[in-house]
Amino acid sequence: MKLAELTSPRDLGQIPAQELPKLVQEIREEIIKTVAVNGGHLASNLGAVELTVALHRVLHCPEDKILFDVGHQCYTHKLLTGRQKQFASLRKTDGLCGFPRREESEYDVMDTGHASTAISAALGLARARDMQGEHYKVVAVVGDGALTGGMCYEALNDAGSRHTPMMIVVNDNGMSISRNVGALSRQLTRLRVSRGWLGAKKAVADALRRVPVGSNALYRGFQRIKNKARNVLVRDKYFTALGFRYFGPIDGHDLPGMERVFRQLLEMEEPVVVHVVTRKGNGFRDAEEKPEKYHGVSPFMPQDEKSGPTMGSAAGAYVTELAAGRPDICVVTAAMTDSTGFTPFAEKYPDRLFDVGIAEEHAVTLASGMAAGGLRPFVAIYETFLQRGFDQIMEDVCLQQLPVTFLMDRAGLGGEDGATHHGIYGVGMLRTMPGMRVLSPACEAELRAMIDWALSQSGPVAIRYPKNTKVHLPFAGFSAGRWDALRPGGDAAVIGVSAILEECLKAADILEKKGIRASVINASTLWPGDEGCLRRLAAERVPVFTVEEHALTGGLGSITAQICACAGLPGPRRMFSLPDAFIPHGNRKQLLARYGLTAEQIAAQIQKAVRT
Amino acid sequence: MKLAELTSPRDLGQIPAQELPKLVQEIREEIIKTVAVNGGHLASNLGAVELTVALHRVLHCPEDKILFDVGHQCYTHKLLTGRQKQFASLRKTDGLCGFPRREESEYDVMDTGHASTAISAALGLARARDMQGEHYKVVAVVGDGALTGGMCYEALNDAGSRHTPMMIVVNDNGMSISRNVGALSRQLTRLRVSRGWLGAKKAVADALRRVPVGSNALYRGFQRIKNKARNVLVRDKYFTALGFRYFGPIDGHDLPGMERVFRQLLEMEEPVVVHVVTRKGNGFRDAEEKPEKYHGVSPFMPQDEKSGPTMGSAAGAYVTELAAGRPDICVVTAAMTDSTGFTPFAEKYPDRLFDVGIAEEHAVTLASGMAAGGLRPFVAIYETFLQRGFDQIMEDVCLQQLPVTFLMDRAGLGGEDGATHHGIYGVGMLRTMPGMRVLSPACEAELRAMIDWALSQSGPVAIRYPKNTKVHLPFAGFSAGRWDALRPGGDAAVIGVSAILEECLKAADILEKKGIRASVINASTLWPGDEGCLRRLAAERVPVFTVEEHALTGGLGSITAQICACAGLPGPRRMFSLPDAFIPHGNRKQLLARYGLTAEQIAAQIQKAVRT
Repeated sequence: MKLAELTSPRDLGQIPAQELPKLVQEIREEIIKTVAVNGGHLASNLGAVELTVALHRVLHCPEDKILFDVGHQCYTHKLLTGRQKQFASLRKTDGLCGFPRREESEYDVMDTGHASTAISAALGLARARDMQGEHYKVVAVVGDGALTGGMCYEALNDAGSRHTPMMIVVNDNGMSISRNVGALSRQLTRLRVSRGWLGAKKAVADALRRVPVGSNALYRGFQRIKNKARNVLVRDKYFTALGFRYFGPIDGHDLPGMERVFRQLLEMEEPVVVHVVTRKGNGFRDAEEKPEKYHGVSPFMPQDEKSGPTMGSAAGAYVTELAAGRPDICVVTAAMTDSTGFTPFAEKYPDRLFDVGIAEEHAVTLASGMAAGGLRPFVAIYETFLQRGFDQIMEDVCLQQLPVTFLMDRAGLGGEDGATHHGIYGVGMLRTMPGMRVLSPACEAELRAMIDWALSQSGPVAIRYPKNTKVHLPFAGFSAGRWDALRPGGDAAVIGVSAILEECLKAADILEKKGIRASVINASTLWPGDEGCLRRLAAERVPVFTVEEHALTGGLGSITAQICACAGLPGPRRMFSLPDAFIPHGNRKQLLARYGLTAEQIAAQIQKAVRT
Repeated sequence: MKLAELTSPRDLGQIPAQELPKLVQEIREEIIKTVAVNGGHLASNLGAVELTVALHRVLHCPEDKILFDVGHQCYTHKLLTGRQKQFASLRKTDGLCGFPRREESEYDVMDTGHASTAISAALGLARARDMQGEHYKVVAVVGDGALTGGMCYEALNDAGSRHTPMMIVVNDNGMSISRNVGALSRQLTRLRVSRGWLGAKKAVADALRRVPVGSNALYRGFQRIKNKARNVLVRDKYFTALGFRYFGPIDGHDLPGMERVFRQLLEMEEPVVVHVVTRKGNGFRDAEEKPEKYHGVSPFMPQDEKSGPTMGSAAGAYVTELAAGRPDICVVTAAMTDSTGFTPFAEKYPDRLFDVGIAEEHAVTLASGMAAGGLRPFVAIYETFLQRGFDQIMEDVCLQQLPVTFLMDRAGLGGEDGATHHGIYGVGMLRTMPGMRVLSPACEAELRAMIDWALSQSGPVAIRYPKNTKVHLPFAGFSAGRWDALRPGGDAAVIGVSAILEECLKAADILEKKGIRASVINASTLWPGDEGCLRRLAAERVPVFTVEEHALTGGLGSITAQICACAGLPGPRRMFSLPDAFIPHGNRKQLLARYGLTAEQIAAQIQKAVRT
């Protein structure tokens, strides 16, 4: 049976074992082919092909539930659950999402995108099952990277405490996301490389083969395996301390072996962890060596990687430059050193960069402790992931007024990754925190000036910037607290910030042709904003329009409305923003158009408002 | 030397060992005496007296740093660091804070109040120390309860990975905050009660006594102890898996024993955990039996416990009542079952209440999994602690539009606990989350109606209420999305919400006497608010005033300003609120007066605004 012929994962059961390698190969080719064109998470998906096939052969979804942590390894799952035909639309506007989406399929149990949540959600489902007297299976698939997140520990601790039956598959791909992801990672490695592991694979498989299938005998069978395997299975400390039965490590590319182990463990009515070792990017070398097989698409480079130097790399380069003269500068990242542009810093100052793993809460408070100890820490992080540290920014940084600078990458629409990755709620989040200043640069020069300013401050500063910006300001220096006009005009004031200023400037051009002279103002100090600027505009009776690539609530429009209300000024005539909603994945330009944020749309609305 | 004579913790070193029990007793009496009058955390502080004295005798603060997790056990520390004379002002307006406060003393390293942060902050300080070539000691004191928080795990994982020298004192008081705080707690108990523990105390003390003091010999000495103690010291799995050296358990009321162990461990240049067993409330029985010794103050009941039935207990009672007919109702708490009023539910439905420990992140996503599995979970939690679950509410509840109901207790000024405990930022926080509805009742009847309404919804709802409210509405039912007038009046509209409506109604009375007829409107659907109501008021040209016990940003005033700006209506004439700042601890009435939120102040300002 070919991949295209599968109507549901149940069909998998009808495929004879000897034909599975062909299916696996077909899936791998489909993933490589699609990612080569559309971009996406290649390595994590290639590593999880056999694992996902094995789970779907053993489980009966959608009754049984598989929760993929982060969800960036769900492509095989999508291909096995009736979405093969749409797969070419992966990550495209209105196409399949690169992460599980409940509205896409009943096989997708939760919408995900942020790490370390699967065990909690799985435990919730398992408890709902038990409370309702149902009997389905619940499986969480968690990467070794996601295990560095504290939520996993909280959930393991809870599950182990009440002995809720569930299976956790630790997908250990043997490659840390970055070099220092913590002691637990080292513990996993120890388990993996211990002398038992090489032999374990075969010994366990042999032992399992002799276990009779049938629920009564299963438990005793498992005990026998454990006895047999005592010398080859490694003693785990961490999971057993938390009340789980640990089983592993097993080979994550040995389909029949995994199937047997999964079947056995799923029959055990207790919380179990199975440690599966996979190779991230398994099969990719083949693709590289035989590119012709993949319709000549090469190199395997996601499209969005081609878009030139990023703001993140500019931030990383500038902080590295400054660090030469300031030994107090240090950097904290949460498993994103490279993505945030800080690899050059890590290479030059390995002792001053702290990658804490996927542990944003700890990252923030660690930085606060560093600042209390006299350092000048930068926290380099994606805007959406900083949400994880909300309480810590509030309590451990703002309450203490410590000089931690947040470098928030991927502000604005995140494009192809979708709802969980857009940076469009961060201003509202940070504004609730007393003493926090929120800046947003429109170009690299402004970003550098903001970093300089942040270093001159004794309290917290957040600088949020998009991945890229095409705005080229005639840059005359950054003045904190001032909203400066980029172009003059007395008929309307268009207040924008960061990358969307490109649309604002174009809108002003369009309006000029219609005889409307609109100023464009750069609200680079988003918060606390510039009351003086708004007072001057009100005094001159210039109608104010705000434009932002952010949800309405909490953003530039709402800042302007609040400042005006406090000062007794008329509020903004119109606030152009994204809606207060979750925005799906898609091409940024197309999404801007969908929500009325292109230059043409903005100009048309302003024209209407000014002329009436 | 008496407690009153201590000028700094260094003086402690001059006290001969045999006189220490007297000092300890004096401290205990001081704590009991003060808490009996002012309220506060009695049990945790009584348990940590010897522990704190031992640390201050061994360390050289303020150069060395002690970080108290949560900080609710810092009273002895305050008494030892020059604040004895002010101690009677504990938790009073403008008095000493019940938690560490940097502005109070150079001995307070971080302002704290939320759990599980100390290891992260301590690690930050330790790394700042190492980067700057300094040599001070860093100690984090963490309770067994706080260890259920994922941040502790993230920090341990990071510290263990880079072998940063620091000492973590696990203050294990042998009483879980609630019954089910997870598997790790069970592991600690196992360590504590294992047959080794009873004998260990003496054997370790004996072994230590024979170790020569002096840094060269120390390490070898410690190895010797370990060999000696092999049979009595318990093997820990959890901490050693994370890269820490574990030592314990030791007796947390044996001052000389603790001192010796601390001295040895602090000399080791590596991350160490020392497991100290204390008795929560140690010495309290004595106080109960001899109340005369404590100036006859009895019973030992904090004042704020006397203020009658709470909104939390009303919520707990009502959910318990509903649960009889709805087997899908379940409750998740984060180590606060009792404080949030859900003990009756826990007693009646022990299998439907899940106390996950101090693990708010997991609590939220657990509830989302339960909702996805068909249950109707309530998350009962203090407003300020829900901050910890920001990302999870956004991604795991709102993005999925799952019917989780948040019962947010302690909304508004939290009174004596201070800056970390006020619930005055929650509306701004929740409003950034698409699809979240935020309600706030003014009385118990309205609270019950809101719970009914939440159960009728298919998406998330947050209901935030103060500990107490004295508002007695002529309650005519709750209409979601409608801001209803509690009293009519055409000269001004006073829009308020929840407990502060008491002041609004009184303000309207005062204004009436001045000939100004002000309506009072109950904005019980805080978000998304009631645009229709604001349109009607604008049509009738009634000036709008908003009143709230919440920071300005994000709250009722900012909601009103935003709705008005969107609808092209004039914004609120004035927004009465708390400032965008951290508010210190103090009596609620006094704090309201400080920020201009009493009826008299509101009336005076409205009068001025309306008459001009």
